[in-house]
Amino acid sequence: MSAAQKIMERIEALAKISDEPGQITRLFASRAMRQANELVAQWMREAGMTPRMDAVGNLIGHYDGQKAKAKIFLLGSHLDTVRNAGKFDGPLGVMLSIACVEELYRRRIRLPFAVEVIGFADEEGARYQTACLGSRVLAGCLDERHLRRRDANGISMAEATKFLGGNPAQLKAARLNPKKLIGYLEAHIEQGPVLEERNMAVGIVSAIAGQCRARISFIGCAGHAGTTPTRLRKDALCAAAEFIMAVEKLAKDTRGLVATVGEIAAWPGTGNVIPGKTRLSLDVRHIRNSIRHAAQAALKRAALQIARGRKLRCQYEAVYETAAVNCSRTLSRLLGQSVKRRQKQLARLPSGAGHDAAVMAGITPSAMLFIRCKNGVSHHPDESVKLRDVQVALDVLNDFILSLGEKHGLTAAAKGGRQHGSTS
Amino acid sequence: MSAAQKIMERIEALAKISDEPGQITRLFASRAMRQANELVAQWMREAGMTPRMDAVGNLIGHYDGQKAKAKIFLLGSHLDTVRNAGKFDGPLGVMLSIACVEELYRRRIRLPFAVEVIGFADEEGARYQTACLGSRVLAGCLDERHLRRRDANGISMAEATKFLGGNPAQLKAARLNPKKLIGYLEAHIEQGPVLEERNMAVGIVSAIAGQCRARISFIGCAGHAGTTPTRLRKDALCAAAEFIMAVEKLAKDTRGLVATVGEIAAWPGTGNVIPGKTRLSLDVRHIRNSIRHAAQAALKRAALQIARGRKLRCQYEAVYETAAVNCSRTLSRLLGQSVKRRQKQLARLPSGAGHDAAVMAGITPSAMLFIRCKNGVSHHPDESVKLRDVQVALDVLNDFILSLGEKHGLTAAAKGGRQHGSTS
Repeated sequence: MSAAQKIMERIEALAKISDEPGQITRLFASRAMRQANELVAQWMREAGMTPRMDAVGNLIGHYDGQKAKAKIFLLGSHLDTVRNAGKFDGPLGVMLSIACVEELYRRRIRLPFAVEVIGFADEEGARYQTACLGSRVLAGCLDERHLRRRDANGISMAEATKFLGGNPAQLKAARLNPKKLIGYLEAHIEQGPVLEERNMAVGIVSAIAGQCRARISFIGCAGHAGTTPTRLRKDALCAAAEFIMAVEKLAKDTRGLVATVGEIAAWPGTGNVIPGKTRLSLDVRHIRNSIRHAAQAALKRAALQIARGRKLRCQYEAVYETAAVNCSRTLSRLLGQSVKRRQKQLARLPSGAGHDAAVMAGITPSAMLFIRCKNGVSHHPDESVKLRDVQVALDVLNDFILSLGEKHGLTAAAKGGRQHGSTS
Repeated sequence: MSAAQKIMERIEALAKISDEPGQITRLFASRAMRQANELVAQWMREAGMTPRMDAVGNLIGHYDGQKAKAKIFLLGSHLDTVRNAGKFDGPLGVMLSIACVEELYRRRIRLPFAVEVIGFADEEGARYQTACLGSRVLAGCLDERHLRRRDANGISMAEATKFLGGNPAQLKAARLNPKKLIGYLEAHIEQGPVLEERNMAVGIVSAIAGQCRARISFIGCAGHAGTTPTRLRKDALCAAAEFIMAVEKLAKDTRGLVATVGEIAAWPGTGNVIPGKTRLSLDVRHIRNSIRHAAQAALKRAALQIARGRKLRCQYEAVYETAAVNCSRTLSRLLGQSVKRRQKQLARLPSGAGHDAAVMAGITPSAMLFIRCKNGVSHHPDESVKLRDVQVALDVLNDFILSLGEKHGLTAAAKGGRQHGSTS
């Protein structure tokens, strides 16, 4: 069995650990999460690592370097999922990381730095609507008020953390010391169609887009669909439609901008009544904060103008914002060299989705490797990644970690027969 | 107490008879409907009429003419309501009709024809989604398969009819004989803003618009709102928005056309996911069938074109259609003369809403008088009509019925002191 096949088998095994039978749902600090952590810890041990769990429930496998007090390079991704998830979003990165260390262990290679593989406890935020809880704890930027949040069953985040085996009182102490870190590399499925369109197995993430979300309401006047003449209407759905067109146009006209209206509701919502009120969601992302801010402001102006032109009212409420994060140039350059040894062309693409790497970039240089996924589908049971692409990603990781080792003084003798070292 | 005040009191009393506490909901053949029929029958008796209930539950009050076998002129409207209705839609027309006969009775006037006041049992179709069930039975155009329809609780229309005291086996026999009829006049709130805008208490309906309804789906491709570049999207909500704009534009460009998208749903309906599917309702109305058909065809073409241009699929399903009906010119002219005696100007307006009068027009000349309602609001608890306007409407009805009597040979002696006969 190849190392890539082993990764796929582990991903299948993880997919069976779910909070809801018949689908993949592994929420932060749930029973399934606890079980997943136990299983992954076992795999870490098999790969020569010493696993530990931190105060929030992140699972961390330690692989010693050449010296006892060596700095640490981090690999990883997350083990939690959205509700009714695919198999790969998160677990693929963790399994690739374990396989990468396993290869070092198999070849008895010790690097000039220790390697730690992290299975983050919460990236999706599906239980408490707080994305990247796990990495926020390690980066020391968790808002501790989040601990008082309660899930749909009234269980607080603090209580859930204890159930997982964590310790909410020790969250501050769980912060990693940036001085001890070399960097962080996260492998993750692309969750978009770009690599597939360009026919590449993997690509390098240039930056993780910042995003802002807003909720917009248009308030017009409901009325009988048969008896209210067109010129006397204050149709809130027509206003919403005009706004959606404006959102699409701005995204088309602005390079690299994505802007999405994903939710819409119209009241009263009956075929023969003119909608008197509509509510929309707006999600705007770009890898440059200035462009995103300008787009957001332009769309807010557009919404207000559309309402004014139609004599409707408009409520625009900004609800969420994260800044864009650039990936480490040094790590990405090294990663790019490893990619170029495995595939002809190098794709550099922005990540429109948020990732733990964006949080980790706050304390250490961070980079990301994207793996092609079928039809760009993610957050869905249809999520699919080719075995061949997993092998390419693993080869890249194996190559990268040795290259990084060389940069830190790894000798040819220590790394053994690297030129024959492909696991494929 | 003036006659108009009495009408308002009766409307208030009817509003208290509901299938659902705290709101006005009087569904076909419900307990509330039965109670309403009993109360209205009592008022009919007080107005000198003999009430009867027909096989479907229409309540009909008979006021004798001068001769035993006189022809019949019909007045009326419906007693059922939508869910969470206003007070006036339906009951106002029935109460005005009763008050009109009551005035004849008070003044001991017998006309050359009998007058019958009808409280139709089902115009709204809120229980069985079959509008104008009551008038369809009287006009002999009921599709008897409707009797097998079941409501949300599984009760068939036939069973419900029996509960109301009707007889589903006798529906065909309940048809009125057109040869015995002179015509039908229905007073009804406008349910739109035109009379209010023109500052008139009442207006005459020129025609009742035909309508068609359709259900339209756009099927694109869901995707991650952050990771799917704009040019690779197949956003079903953007297609829907473009279609809604096309609907609005066509209505603006076509005199007298109203076209409404009242329902919209987008899937999966999450802020950070591109909608992969949307479903809309479309409601198109015009008083000329040819214009409505052309509009409907144009909008179907537009939907398909929009989908094609965006590489989406589109499903267009026509679900309902009624033809336009012209009101009787003879009756409307007579009604117009009565209106002009009460207000300076005569408004003639189309009815965008369907009415029992559109069905009754199939067997006898039919006309409609619209009464101004506040802000054009209807099918809503805020429905509101001024006492003054009710008085104007009643004066018009009283004048009209005597004018019609004169046309049929009513002498000055028989009608008594008409010139002093205003009830105001």
